[in-house]
Amino acid sequence: MMGIWKRHTGIYKEIAKVDECIRLALKSNQQVLASAVNDLLSAGGKRIRPAMVLLSGGFGINNNEEKLIPLAAAIEIMHMATLVHDDIIDQSDLRRGRPTVRNRWGNQIAVFTGDFLLVRAFSLITQSVSQDHMHALANTIKVICEGEIDQFQSRFKKTFSELQYLKRIARKTAVLFALSCQVGAMESQCDVDTVRNLKKFGYNFGMAFQITDDLLDLGGDPELAGKPLGSDFREGIYTLPVIYTIAHPLYKAQIEKFIGRDDLTDYDVLKVGRLVKESGSLEKSRNLALRYLERCHESLRRLPDKPEKDALRELLEETISRKY
Amino acid sequence: MMGIWKRHTGIYKEIAKVDECIRLALKSNQQVLASAVNDLLSAGGKRIRPAMVLLSGGFGINNNEEKLIPLAAAIEIMHMATLVHDDIIDQSDLRRGRPTVRNRWGNQIAVFTGDFLLVRAFSLITQSVSQDHMHALANTIKVICEGEIDQFQSRFKKTFSELQYLKRIARKTAVLFALSCQVGAMESQCDVDTVRNLKKFGYNFGMAFQITDDLLDLGGDPELAGKPLGSDFREGIYTLPVIYTIAHPLYKAQIEKFIGRDDLTDYDVLKVGRLVKESGSLEKSRNLALRYLERCHESLRRLPDKPEKDALRELLEETISRKY
Repeated sequence: MMGIWKRHTGIYKEIAKVDECIRLALKSNQQVLASAVNDLLSAGGKRIRPAMVLLSGGFGINNNEEKLIPLAAAIEIMHMATLVHDDIIDQSDLRRGRPTVRNRWGNQIAVFTGDFLLVRAFSLITQSVSQDHMHALANTIKVICEGEIDQFQSRFKKTFSELQYLKRIARKTAVLFALSCQVGAMESQCDVDTVRNLKKFGYNFGMAFQITDDLLDLGGDPELAGKPLGSDFREGIYTLPVIYTIAHPLYKAQIEKFIGRDDLTDYDVLKVGRLVKESGSLEKSRNLALRYLERCHESLRRLPDKPEKDALRELLEETISRKY
Repeated sequence: MMGIWKRHTGIYKEIAKVDECIRLALKSNQQVLASAVNDLLSAGGKRIRPAMVLLSGGFGINNNEEKLIPLAAAIEIMHMATLVHDDIIDQSDLRRGRPTVRNRWGNQIAVFTGDFLLVRAFSLITQSVSQDHMHALANTIKVICEGEIDQFQSRFKKTFSELQYLKRIARKTAVLFALSCQVGAMESQCDVDTVRNLKKFGYNFGMAFQITDDLLDLGGDPELAGKPLGSDFREGIYTLPVIYTIAHPLYKAQIEKFIGRDDLTDYDVLKVGRLVKESGSLEKSRNLALRYLERCHESLRRLPDKPEKDALRELLEETISRKY
């Protein structure tokens, strides 16, 4: 949980209700499944997507908790599903400092645990959300799947560009943030302009969030992150700081020795981390994140003044300035 | 495609429309995904579940093609999704004589291909089906996931009983057959009795179908099946004929030498096939399938006389008497 939830007691209570809703939706008599779900829930998570649904809902004339809480819970469950399946793809053994489902139970169980999460999310919203939003949600997960396959296919490619990177993170992350804001706003009957501004806010937030995530993977503190440094790089997934380093005339040759290889040692990855830092690529990446942050502020300025607006602003600052 | 479709030109045309609907729903610009989907579609399949939706729909007062075709397509896509993920679990390289998605593209791509199929199925029905049926469908997939995890967890267990087996195949197969009939009947506004009889028909058909599938895995022709003989047994999944052989006083000791082992040779599996046959366990399994078949006929007798009734009867006979 993030510090901001403590300062905004209203949203803190709502997030607790979302967590309870998630717990209920994921009940199962199947013991392994119950246990895997319990691991996932106790691992926590920042619950940023649910917060966006709920805070966006605060801008409408009809802030309907009965609809927004299951909707927020469903979006978080879908996100959890993609993480569980993602960890199979990336062969990740740790997430947030804890063993992943695939690490503890094996890839096989992880496949059906992810499916279980996905269908439970759909079940949850069939009861509360309009068909249109349901369709939009399913479509977003489709885009995420396509993005994941693209990412997997372009692993270890030396010619991966900044534009390709931005497209990838848009699909992987920003669309679900945008949708969280959009459906929250629409279910609470916000006017068209407010829906548009919130959706834009969510999209740009997602971009800034993912760029920050990616630069922390190479320049952050692995202890705080609860996963090894440069894990994306090891898997052949080249993020923005790496792309900038390759584009740097003085560092190109040095970093290219480590590109396209799946046999890197811990020492190699440390070396890559150093190159990325020394070349100023981390800072350059941070600057791009800040540009997306600025766009978020622009959208916020266009929104009516409400306590939710301050909360979104704090959420933004806290997410981008985080150290893990 | 099954022979029956050729004799019933009405249903044949409808199934062709379902196939077209599936093709449209699964379009993707992501090349790997498009290619994997194309493989799946050209591999064919019997389309039994769509046929059940459509034939059940024929008993209602409002045989609404606009609703039934996307519904039938969605159910088939969900079934395809579970097959793709199932092949990851079972490490299967062949299905219907063709390479599986995981064999051709790897487990990683197969995970997200399955997810893609699942969410496309949901997208398809949000546009046409009532929320209640949507919920029932999502719930059925949940039951299938739990069943798959159970099956995986009970692999190589020596004490697997007939009752456990029947529970497993009910969840793995019969619930989706039952649901296909039920939603087809309900969407076309059948009366309560007709819905109940069709649902029962579907359930018992599913049980007979899966028992037949399992006995063909050990006693069928691997050439016709397009996959190696005894593939379940190798994976530690003990089906009805095996359970009966273990229970046979004269064969118990012989078959137990092969139970609980994951290091069997082709010769070992041939030997198991012989024991299962000699002990009369294949025939005993077939007799249980026939008992479920008899229950299907009972349900059919209670249904009003319609051309769809004859088609269901033929579908039943053809499915149970198949050689692969």
